[in-house]
Amino acid sequence: MMNTQLTLASMLDRTERYFSKKRIISRTLTKTHTFTYEAYVKRTRSLASALYKLGVEKGDRVGTLGWNHHRHLEAYFAVPSMGAVLHTINIRLSEDHLKFIINHAEDKFLLIDEDLLPLIERIKDELTSVEGFIVMTDKEELPDSTLAPMYSYEKLVANGERTFSFVEDIAENDAAVLCYTSGTTGKPKGVLYSHRGLYLHSMSLGMTDTAGLSEADTVMPVVPMFHVNAWGIPFASTWLGSTQVLPGPNATPKILAKLIEEHKVTITAGVPTIWLGLLKELEQESYNLNSLRAVLCGGSAAPKGMIRAFEETHGIPFLHAYGMTETTPLVTASKLKSYQTDLPDEERLEVRSKQGLVVPGIELKAVNEYGEVKADGVEMGELLIRGPWIADGYYKDDRSGEAFIDGWLHTGDVVTIDEEGLVKIVDRTKDLIKSGGEWISSVDLENTLMAHPDVFEAAVVSIPDPKWQERPVACIVLKDGKNITKDEIINYLEPQFAKWWLPDEVIFMDEIPKTSVGKFLKMALREQVLGQLS
Amino acid sequence: MMNTQLTLASMLDRTERYFSKKRIISRTLTKTHTFTYEAYVKRTRSLASALYKLGVEKGDRVGTLGWNHHRHLEAYFAVPSMGAVLHTINIRLSEDHLKFIINHAEDKFLLIDEDLLPLIERIKDELTSVEGFIVMTDKEELPDSTLAPMYSYEKLVANGERTFSFVEDIAENDAAVLCYTSGTTGKPKGVLYSHRGLYLHSMSLGMTDTAGLSEADTVMPVVPMFHVNAWGIPFASTWLGSTQVLPGPNATPKILAKLIEEHKVTITAGVPTIWLGLLKELEQESYNLNSLRAVLCGGSAAPKGMIRAFEETHGIPFLHAYGMTETTPLVTASKLKSYQTDLPDEERLEVRSKQGLVVPGIELKAVNEYGEVKADGVEMGELLIRGPWIADGYYKDDRSGEAFIDGWLHTGDVVTIDEEGLVKIVDRTKDLIKSGGEWISSVDLENTLMAHPDVFEAAVVSIPDPKWQERPVACIVLKDGKNITKDEIINYLEPQFAKWWLPDEVIFMDEIPKTSVGKFLKMALREQVLGQLS
Repeated sequence: MMNTQLTLASMLDRTERYFSKKRIISRTLTKTHTFTYEAYVKRTRSLASALYKLGVEKGDRVGTLGWNHHRHLEAYFAVPSMGAVLHTINIRLSEDHLKFIINHAEDKFLLIDEDLLPLIERIKDELTSVEGFIVMTDKEELPDSTLAPMYSYEKLVANGERTFSFVEDIAENDAAVLCYTSGTTGKPKGVLYSHRGLYLHSMSLGMTDTAGLSEADTVMPVVPMFHVNAWGIPFASTWLGSTQVLPGPNATPKILAKLIEEHKVTITAGVPTIWLGLLKELEQESYNLNSLRAVLCGGSAAPKGMIRAFEETHGIPFLHAYGMTETTPLVTASKLKSYQTDLPDEERLEVRSKQGLVVPGIELKAVNEYGEVKADGVEMGELLIRGPWIADGYYKDDRSGEAFIDGWLHTGDVVTIDEEGLVKIVDRTKDLIKSGGEWISSVDLENTLMAHPDVFEAAVVSIPDPKWQERPVACIVLKDGKNITKDEIINYLEPQFAKWWLPDEVIFMDEIPKTSVGKFLKMALREQVLGQLS
Repeated sequence: MMNTQLTLASMLDRTERYFSKKRIISRTLTKTHTFTYEAYVKRTRSLASALYKLGVEKGDRVGTLGWNHHRHLEAYFAVPSMGAVLHTINIRLSEDHLKFIINHAEDKFLLIDEDLLPLIERIKDELTSVEGFIVMTDKEELPDSTLAPMYSYEKLVANGERTFSFVEDIAENDAAVLCYTSGTTGKPKGVLYSHRGLYLHSMSLGMTDTAGLSEADTVMPVVPMFHVNAWGIPFASTWLGSTQVLPGPNATPKILAKLIEEHKVTITAGVPTIWLGLLKELEQESYNLNSLRAVLCGGSAAPKGMIRAFEETHGIPFLHAYGMTETTPLVTASKLKSYQTDLPDEERLEVRSKQGLVVPGIELKAVNEYGEVKADGVEMGELLIRGPWIADGYYKDDRSGEAFIDGWLHTGDVVTIDEEGLVKIVDRTKDLIKSGGEWISSVDLENTLMAHPDVFEAAVVSIPDPKWQERPVACIVLKDGKNITKDEIINYLEPQFAKWWLPDEVIFMDEIPKTSVGKFLKMALREQVLGQLS
């Protein structure tokens, strides 16, 4: 067979040749743009040519701080297709983490949305590799900023070569995209996605047994493009010629509902928090959303009530899926097998609320200390994953050995797998808290709290939250004779963490329950906290 | 990303883990079998263990002469998963060609259907590599045969290890399957399929924008398993856990209609000749075939009338596709783009009768002597194809350079490509005749005819045929004073060609029209022949 390389440039070639008439609808700060793919590809080539002239070379990293819009999508293909690496930066990280990942990735240029400039202005003096800042804005003039040198994205595109040829010598195992994940402890960890991984992941997204993305779809990724490549959906949608609706900055449930209705969106994707918001909006106002064939939901477990509300109350099919930054992310999708469609409603819902069956292309198993656990839906084990779109380590990070062992990714998620092969997450080996689809490390918060001069010991546990799934609560034992307030604790944490990491509650107690070997008994502590807060 | 290899064994692992309850229905000479995938995988492992004990090693070729049934499907996964190469032998080849390909492939063992034993008995003394013959039969006792040593497939499977482990060190670029194609001239040419090629091709078959194969499908490949792996459908269906219906030997239109009705087949695949037969059957008897979501048709162009009959008369969706042995075979599928669904009926039919849009993963272009031709639906060029499931040469064959040039497969098909990217085959560069989905080389027939002592010159042209698409007609100029009959000509050709290659008509003439440089004017000759025969 031919040694044809699976690259993003070859995917874009398909878009250019066959889907020139199809459209991208893009909402930005000031307006809603509509582009044909023909225009999109020309702008993408122009952007690549401009970056090339600015000195971006094969292997260089180019960072983005952007919402879901057409310019971000242009960077998605332009940067990897010129052989460079697209580093999508989570705009919700703390200053410390932002600084860390930009310097760790050694980003040469940053593409920044106008409204996100302050995030970088605050840390600009500590950035060690950035040679220039490219502002993504609809306005003619560049905004006032302390960043320099600063370039206008639109001027670069206008002056670029619309027929610029991408480099030919990209191998499928070359890096295409870099994304950092907030890990269990310490600094964020980088995951490098290869062209091959993204290509195969796109094929998988197009398979009927996964999301079945196709040319006929109108796709709206609500999951941010700075979060695991919006689950890879922009890559697959562009390749397959789907119509794309990019909802832009601060898209409220009302905005999302209107976009779905107006553009007849057929499939949309996001974390449970988003869909809880949409359900609330649908209770208040009436929309015609019957174009939707699937609401793809991942990032955290979707509650059964949510699935029921979408399907039974609103007649909107719901598709529960599972993955993580390290897995590009698609690992499982919860669809009924053909012989399960006749199950009673309640059983079907039970099946559908699991994380689901592993998608074609990926392998998984659950293991405990004795080996692979039985697929009986009862025995629990840590979920291990492998496959061609699973990372094999963290980017330049000596913590890789903690998660990548003997060719398998050790997820830290504790699961059961039933007789049908359906995965259900029941716990986490490490005490991560998942809030709004993002991880919060309790261990990180604890370590910082315990570094406070007045704190004797501290434990952070999660409590269920109707909007964010989980929220952290800090439990603190003060040193003898010390007396500080909740506000002082929060003020102390604030400069060191993203805002959404800050505990909702601080509970002062005399003692934290511990195991015989002195480890926190988090389960007991959580119950105690829930009792106190209720 | 992990260096996970795309292999058939990993596909079978998925089947075993998740689809053990799903079924394979298999029609053989004496009865219809039903197996679960659980039983299927155990039998497949047993077969591999038995072949291993017989001495089959990594890289060895194992030939099959079989219809579409469960044993053939077992060999499909068992042989490649043990690192050997499955050589599917076209049972319709001439003795000469059968002998040639078995010796050229150096098959170590042959798996042969009971009713196909005579094909091999006739040539057994001239086989240079075969160490044993394994008979696939439902009967307890081995049939009488001159073949030796002879083994019973069922006894091998019964005595094998049902938990046999496949070898671990298969790389995705290793050979998995070998299939010979009747080429333009001379001996058949071998195409070697890699694990990677078959894996990616299976992903493509599962994509919504191609055939969309899924777990929910009941799939019946009518296209033979000795013909381009039944278009790769058995690999994809097994992997995805689809129910499979394998129609077995000599499946008449009546048998096919009954199988579709009884087992609620959702997708079936075959050449136009098969579907013409089915349409005739549907005119004579009444069946409920409304489970069918697609009749996949390739191998030759499907006439518009056939598409119309399926869709309008019988309400059965028709899916026209294109490919060849060298392309695994899926290259194009003719689906309407979303904005074409509103076209008037006649225009939609026009679109649908084209070969269609290239599937995701493959690239193609049409070139003439000046380079790539315009995509205007008018300019003609030779179709060039490349991609990860396209062959890069013929197996141990110095004719590879004729078709594989600068990284592209030169198909010999002359096409137009329209503004939408839809490919339409308009002619062939070489004078191949396509009969019942198989190629007949006019040049081969001509060379043999002209070797007859009484023949002065001979040309073979195709005439349209309602059942077989095209059939060959021989035009012969005898030497002065010679006088032989049509029957004598046919008798002369018979031992050297497959039966279906033999010309339907032999026309004796005084002169064959030629170009100024002495080449046959085939177009003019064909018109002359059509005039004479009408």
